[in-house]
Amino acid sequence: MVDVPELVAQAREGRPRAVARLISLVEGASPQLREVMAALSPLTGGAFVIGLTGSPGVGKSTTTSALVTAYRKAGKRVGVLAVDPSSPFSGGALLGDRVRMSEHASDPGVYIRSMATRGHLGGLAWAAPQAIRVLDAAGCEVILVETVGVGQSEVEIAAQADTCAVLLAPGMGDGIQAAKAGILEIGDIYAVNKADREGADATARELNHMLGLGEARGPGDWRPPIVRTVAARGEGIDQLVEAVEKHRAWMEEHGALTARRVRRAAAEIETIAVTALRTRLADVHGDRRLAALASRVVAGDIDPYRASDAFLADLTGVGG
Amino acid sequence: MVDVPELVAQAREGRPRAVARLISLVEGASPQLREVMAALSPLTGGAFVIGLTGSPGVGKSTTTSALVTAYRKAGKRVGVLAVDPSSPFSGGALLGDRVRMSEHASDPGVYIRSMATRGHLGGLAWAAPQAIRVLDAAGCEVILVETVGVGQSEVEIAAQADTCAVLLAPGMGDGIQAAKAGILEIGDIYAVNKADREGADATARELNHMLGLGEARGPGDWRPPIVRTVAARGEGIDQLVEAVEKHRAWMEEHGALTARRVRRAAAEIETIAVTALRTRLADVHGDRRLAALASRVVAGDIDPYRASDAFLADLTGVGG
Repeated sequence: MVDVPELVAQAREGRPRAVARLISLVEGASPQLREVMAALSPLTGGAFVIGLTGSPGVGKSTTTSALVTAYRKAGKRVGVLAVDPSSPFSGGALLGDRVRMSEHASDPGVYIRSMATRGHLGGLAWAAPQAIRVLDAAGCEVILVETVGVGQSEVEIAAQADTCAVLLAPGMGDGIQAAKAGILEIGDIYAVNKADREGADATARELNHMLGLGEARGPGDWRPPIVRTVAARGEGIDQLVEAVEKHRAWMEEHGALTARRVRRAAAEIETIAVTALRTRLADVHGDRRLAALASRVVAGDIDPYRASDAFLADLTGVGG
Repeated sequence: MVDVPELVAQAREGRPRAVARLISLVEGASPQLREVMAALSPLTGGAFVIGLTGSPGVGKSTTTSALVTAYRKAGKRVGVLAVDPSSPFSGGALLGDRVRMSEHASDPGVYIRSMATRGHLGGLAWAAPQAIRVLDAAGCEVILVETVGVGQSEVEIAAQADTCAVLLAPGMGDGIQAAKAGILEIGDIYAVNKADREGADATARELNHMLGLGEARGPGDWRPPIVRTVAARGEGIDQLVEAVEKHRAWMEEHGALTARRVRRAAAEIETIAVTALRTRLADVHGDRRLAALASRVVAGDIDPYRASDAFLADLTGVGG
């Protein structure tokens, strides 16, 4: 068994191996998971969580890296959680990106973690918030969560950050893509990256137009700004950080930060509860019972809703 | 109220508006959802479901379109479900793709549906199987489910098909990407599309190598074939169809088709059950109770696991 209090104390001191160990414990549904989470809980709440999302190829990792540099210059401890399978943080990278990352890899003020979450019980929705808690408790003041803006779970993780930055790039038909993927609804800030390329103006214009078409905003509402960046050269990154700070100030002024964190915690509780229910069902007799019901559904004997009623009646003693 | 039996009868006759109406009913959680699903249930089981997945840009939609053409030539009724935000079936398309699609749009033997599922209760995991049931009951003999191979939910939907085809294309660093995204574990068939391009041999070789590195296979196990296609010109599509038929025959011989469908139905029942639990909680007092617990989690007062225990105790009368 791991000495959890000792491990937590080491993580607070910023020892990367202790942080890594804790994340592995909460990611892997270890028997000590609950002990770890209970120990972390009073230590959390100090981190500001920034989600970065966008289609593959818009430059999310380069932007993440540039933001790490900016926050490190400001003296902040930074955590990076890469949920993007194409991210160089996750290993799938072009050589140039890897080199750019490696400057952070040797910086003790930066903790980088990638998530390999397929096959997990509750998947990304379950593992990502727990990893964020570890980084938060370990004293990261800023946590950057990079997710690819394509999958449903991935987009939701970014949307649940304190501030969600959506990245686009010129000439990728990005406006339409973004609208399709639903990421036009979740951005608190939009960044048109690779803004030195042809078509950047058109992308910004199109984006501005599409955002204007959204729901009407009142005078006190947050209007997502559009920032232009060339992350590979660090251009526009200060403006992006400034936009994040403005959004943070706006949220604190309007009580929106706490409201958002409560929503995030509620989603986390729900996911844990659902995972617990599934486990409980499987432990008792759920798997065989479920398979029997599923066989009847495949045979066209009952529909999946009646099967679900029967399944739930088993669990809660109440019919649907 | 909709006359469900009449609508189902019309859908059986192949009337596209009736099919569309039914899908909207099951997608939108209409009050008649359960009635519709009960009516469809005895009519399902006749369709063979083929999942197509892969990174953006590998040519999923072009391949889907070419498969539609092939199955139509064989006299089959075909349904297409596009869960890919970049798919021309979903509207986000280059003009050329749209033109290629439109030949099918006017064919009464083809039903095409795209999913716009964000914000749904149970999301894709909930809506996609229900739409597949409608297409199945409406007499589609082949259902092609096109999903982008990036998101967790999206990959899972493809993996739950009767046969899952994973597409790659040369020169996209696809091998690594595919491994990262976890789609190397789910393919029953692999297609290297754009096989006339430079690098196709290398991609096929790399893929072959990576598949060989996977778990050891016994003599009776299915070994995923690698097919080369140039979908835009219809090349290799016959071989792809042949590979699908071989996989189907293998599954039927080994009882694997029923086993897979039972697993798919079990996942469907679970999703419906979980959605029902959430709705029930929200109906009674769940939302307020959950928000109160979430506030305590944000304050660091309790950890999310203890909050989940309290939440579940409320629902089932049993502690965690």
